[in-house]
Amino acid sequence: MLKAAILGGSGYAGSELLRLLLSHPHVEVTAVTSERSAGTKIVDSFLHLRNTDLKFEPLDLKTLKEKADLFFLCLPHKTSQEAVAALHKAGKKVVDFSADYRIKNVKVYQDWYNTSHNFPALLKKAVYGLPEIYRKQIKKASIIANPGCYPTSAILALAPVIGKDFIDADSIIVDSKSGTSGAGRSPAQPLMFCEVNESVKAYAVTTHRHTPEIEQELSAISKKKIKIIFTPHLMPIDRGILSTIYIRLKKKVNLPGVQKLYNEFYKDEPFVRVLNNGVYPTTKAVKGTNFCDLSVFHDKRTQSLIVVSAIDNLLKGASGAAVQNMNIMCGFGETAGLLASPPSP
Amino acid sequence: MLKAAILGGSGYAGSELLRLLLSHPHVEVTAVTSERSAGTKIVDSFLHLRNTDLKFEPLDLKTLKEKADLFFLCLPHKTSQEAVAALHKAGKKVVDFSADYRIKNVKVYQDWYNTSHNFPALLKKAVYGLPEIYRKQIKKASIIANPGCYPTSAILALAPVIGKDFIDADSIIVDSKSGTSGAGRSPAQPLMFCEVNESVKAYAVTTHRHTPEIEQELSAISKKKIKIIFTPHLMPIDRGILSTIYIRLKKKVNLPGVQKLYNEFYKDEPFVRVLNNGVYPTTKAVKGTNFCDLSVFHDKRTQSLIVVSAIDNLLKGASGAAVQNMNIMCGFGETAGLLASPPSP
Amino acid sequence: MLKAAILGGSGYAGSELLRLLLSHPHVEVTAVTSERSAGTKIVDSFLHLRNTDLKFEPLDLKTLKEKADLFFLCLPHKTSQEAVAALHKAGKKVVDFSADYRIKNVKVYQDWYNTSHNFPALLKKAVYGLPEIYRKQIKKASIIANPGCYPTSAILALAPVIGKDFIDADSIIVDSKSGTSGAGRSPAQPLMFCEVNESVKAYAVTTHRHTPEIEQELSAISKKKIKIIFTPHLMPIDRGILSTIYIRLKKKVNLPGVQKLYNEFYKDEPFVRVLNNGVYPTTKAVKGTNFCDLSVFHDKRTQSLIVVSAIDNLLKGASGAAVQNMNIMCGFGETAGLLASPPSP
Amino acid sequence: MLKAAILGGSGYAGSELLRLLLSHPHVEVTAVTSERSAGTKIVDSFLHLRNTDLKFEPLDLKTLKEKADLFFLCLPHKTSQEAVAALHKAGKKVVDFSADYRIKNVKVYQDWYNTSHNFPALLKKAVYGLPEIYRKQIKKASIIANPGCYPTSAILALAPVIGKDFIDADSIIVDSKSGTSGAGRSPAQPLMFCEVNESVKAYAVTTHRHTPEIEQELSAISKKKIKIIFTPHLMPIDRGILSTIYIRLKKKVNLPGVQKLYNEFYKDEPFVRVLNNGVYPTTKAVKGTNFCDLSVFHDKRTQSLIVVSAIDNLLKGASGAAVQNMNIMCGFGETAGLLASPPSP
Repeated sequence: MLKAAILGGSGYAGSELLRLLLSHPHVEVTAVTSERSAGTKIVDSFLHLRNTDLKFEPLDLKTLKEKADLFFLCLPHKTSQEAVAALHKAGKKVVDFSADYRIKNVKVYQDWYNTSHNFPALLKKAVYGLPEIYRKQIKKASIIANPGCYPTSAILALAPVIGKDFIDADSIIVDSKSGTSGAGRSPAQPLMFCEVNESVKAYAVTTHRHTPEIEQELSAISKKKIKIIFTPHLMPIDRGILSTIYIRLKKKVNLPGVQKLYNEFYKDEPFVRVLNNGVYPTTKAVKGTNFCDLSVFHDKRTQSLIVVSAIDNLLKGASGAAVQNMNIMCGFGETAGLLASPPSP
Repeated sequence: MLKAAILGGSGYAGSELLRLLLSHPHVEVTAVTSERSAGTKIVDSFLHLRNTDLKFEPLDLKTLKEKADLFFLCLPHKTSQEAVAALHKAGKKVVDFSADYRIKNVKVYQDWYNTSHNFPALLKKAVYGLPEIYRKQIKKASIIANPGCYPTSAILALAPVIGKDFIDADSIIVDSKSGTSGAGRSPAQPLMFCEVNESVKAYAVTTHRHTPEIEQELSAISKKKIKIIFTPHLMPIDRGILSTIYIRLKKKVNLPGVQKLYNEFYKDEPFVRVLNNGVYPTTKAVKGTNFCDLSVFHDKRTQSLIVVSAIDNLLKGASGAAVQNMNIMCGFGETAGLLASPPSP
Repeated sequence: MLKAAILGGSGYAGSELLRLLLSHPHVEVTAVTSERSAGTKIVDSFLHLRNTDLKFEPLDLKTLKEKADLFFLCLPHKTSQEAVAALHKAGKKVVDFSADYRIKNVKVYQDWYNTSHNFPALLKKAVYGLPEIYRKQIKKASIIANPGCYPTSAILALAPVIGKDFIDADSIIVDSKSGTSGAGRSPAQPLMFCEVNESVKAYAVTTHRHTPEIEQELSAISKKKIKIIFTPHLMPIDRGILSTIYIRLKKKVNLPGVQKLYNEFYKDEPFVRVLNNGVYPTTKAVKGTNFCDLSVFHDKRTQSLIVVSAIDNLLKGASGAAVQNMNIMCGFGETAGLLASPPSP
Repeated sequence: MLKAAILGGSGYAGSELLRLLLSHPHVEVTAVTSERSAGTKIVDSFLHLRNTDLKFEPLDLKTLKEKADLFFLCLPHKTSQEAVAALHKAGKKVVDFSADYRIKNVKVYQDWYNTSHNFPALLKKAVYGLPEIYRKQIKKASIIANPGCYPTSAILALAPVIGKDFIDADSIIVDSKSGTSGAGRSPAQPLMFCEVNESVKAYAVTTHRHTPEIEQELSAISKKKIKIIFTPHLMPIDRGILSTIYIRLKKKVNLPGVQKLYNEFYKDEPFVRVLNNGVYPTTKAVKGTNFCDLSVFHDKRTQSLIVVSAIDNLLKGASGAAVQNMNIMCGFGETAGLLASPPSP
């Protein structure tokens, strides 16, 4: 059994991660930290997690280092930089949920996150944890930069066609709709029930920090510099991201041909499902799962492709992906602990 | 007092229209029809409408013609064609909620609605009821084709810039998110609470019938043939449409300049509010109102404008617009009966 | 025009009150206070209130006293005690939303609110602002203790029968379900969207402070000491209270007879609607209105009455009631500004 | 591996049952029927169930009998009567979700269900499938009458005290709040999103068919004839039942003593959790689980107990209970396939 610890376990990503790990066949959770709740039982914060006696403990790396071999870090940006470095130095495997080790270009990181990066050497070692693209590298990695939720929904939708010459790579628009759990668990008036309920809005238009992350990965896959428009929206649902992605065509294509590309690209992927022609992804159908559902449409009138993707932002968009990455890094079955069908509706 | 009748009053648009008319200073509602509910009191179907003793009556045009001078038609497509013609012949004013008199090109109508148009002469007479564009014509009209909900949210967001040479008119994408009342009140499994709640999905991708309506009006304003991509989405809220609209720029612009265009264009409009820089429209802020909130963003990185608009699909997107059109046609104050601030949250 | 001010206007009750007053035919709002938001425009906090240029101002009684003749106080308990006294001394009319002047027995107030009452003489002058019971006294009052939301839903449901000898007055149970706006607008984790959504729970079982308020009024009407069980619940809706009330019978009754009692009791009331036999009150049918819908059921099997009441907690349960009280105090028509039908759904 | 079939699998209970069985360690699902959807793949109706290639088949008992050893029947009342009899005659084990074999008194069944019972001998053989009360009988049973959702939430909350002399057994009131999935998946206007959302209502007051079921079981446990008041309410959530239960005391008790009774009663139960003093059950904490959370309160002022229970209506209230019953009948571990922690929020 692998000993694993969760640093920063009082939020929604942390609690979902703990839930997955508690029923994982090859993992023993040895520590979960929370500054605010240190000393209290986890079940008191998360009534639905009743199969554990663990208590939250303070974030004391010295003590924690003795307790586990793999660390999941659900810490704020910047805080993660140091913690990853310290744990790596101690020979530990790390899966980092922050953006600190995702953006490979230090300048881009500084521009979008308004802070410097103090571990550029480590940054090079870190692998972007999207198994559908980097499975080989993840196998050998010791630091995983776990992808952002929006980027996962966008990159998986675009990967099969982004390098193709029939698309206009400068035309890409990602319009994403997210559930509210993506905004975290800290109290804030805009996240209160009466503010979110019965409302839909865009936010961070032109400025969301997941933009350079999506661009970095699309550029890497296609081997050309890609810029996108990315607009996130807040929805009155607990969880889920639906991304509607627009791509202009430079050459004529037919839909069956494009669908075949998608089917081929993902034919061995355990967690990506390309839906049949005309079937629509919904956040409800992936809620509680590590799946990404994809559907491709062809608009002949405007010579465009429209790709719709759905993921659960807390699972394939965060904690599920983290477990998938751990499975690959540690040589477990890639789907271990991740295939339970979700309750529905 | 103007005598007005509502044909097809058992749905959400009909009931909202009735609500508005019941408190309108210059209107008396003399008849509301419903085939299913004929003979029953309206309050039995709509518990919130307690200030009326009206009963639903059957759709018998012969009898109805005697009862009113202006008719609001909330009837299915195709059914409306005949009814509009009959009422027009009888010298009545008509506000038609269907698409039958919106699409000016009979061929386009046939292609998208799979039915022929039998009154092409009347079609020419009908005025597209968007006061911000056609106020003058509405004043003299006897047939109003009341705009679709999505088109209103898109056209108002685009009108100030669609004819400008600094935008690429071939690049327009309208990504719209709608509340469920837009799908009507007839029972259907996909509209059941447990199917819609906690879910977000796209639908009718590349095929929604509001597409040619948006294109017709954008083409008319800009005097060039415009094709757009339009994608509607279903949200778990009762009402509201948020449209996020993407426009590529052909020339450099600055945001204050574009915002000034919007402010100028709408400076005398009672129901369009251009929000200050950085303020986001939300469906909740326009819920229960006839307002359209707009906000413009400039993405320098991709040389694009992003315009976000919010309306209440049942008001500015349907019944509120109908009352506004009636006010203009009949020489009432344009805002009569339409300025009540809504309850919130 | 009556000059009115709102002290504590940044919450949901304050904003709903402002909305009602802005469209009231006999009132001019001259000041709205908010400590946190002083100096900012109200529309910046409440995007839906666009028909005012008012700014929030600080709570400086000295300045405020010059500005208005009637004051609505939406202040915390205890703070209100002093403010009411100061305004009363200055000859102003006051409608107090807090509980400070509701509970007539100082000892009871101290037991449930954990604080002393420093103005027992004023307490005697204050009138409990439930027009259906105290209309005469409200007419002559200068201090109105505006009722709590739960008490309004309970007292109106019980008033017609509470003094009757056929009921067991010791058997009363009030099981209430409230929307989340009742819990206020201050950020708190239990009120976050992801905590409230898709959840139903009881809270403050046996300890809710509205209990003695309900008991006081039922005792006053029936002229005997009444104790009740009151259990509030939190629902994932914005607004509304549904109270289900259980009363054991001491003598046989028949339903038509009891319904007649209710119809008689409320026959002249503009804001209480006794529904027909078998029609169920819903929070949606009263949302956005000042109405209370009531329905009475007779369980022959257990010799009981079950009364279901529905109100909008922010209107008949708070700000609508306050306007109704003002209307009565000031000699306006009792329904002035309160009869707009609400948008629905 | 046990071969199991689901008759009536196109509703929410059926799909949840299938989900549980597909991941059950000792079961192979060999058939799922649906008259409407016969011939189509199950995943086409339930997008979230992707780990099966099963198709719906028609309800042809002759064919089906060959396919399985245990049958779950999610059929309408009355239809079940015959099907249970036929399968029992063929030597099959049956878990029946309908009420047909729950009500032991044929007269009571006829009164509440308006139909006769044609298999009174079988009715005697059938065991009421509440393991916390009837575990021994379930072990030997061949026909299980799977309990109703409301009854489970009420009986588990009352079982520890119903036979005690310190309570007034004639005073019991069960006020239940249910999610909308309890109303089934067949389209109906009152269950449309826009009707249910933002609304709370009572229904079937004094007439709900679960009333005699609760009474039968409470009477059986306490060995006296018990009548209760039961009021169900519809909530705008997908799933969950919260029951608030009122019991008058005949003798003085103290809360720790009563809580000890509950803890003792359920100390070996895998699926009932008695919460600590002051902790509130929520539907969200049991959503997606087979657990029942209970909390007991003592109202000294009115000499009453208030017990609050929370279950997931589709799991402990239906399909989870069915699997638990199967586990017991078939000698599997009682918790097999039922302990997965649910996604949350």
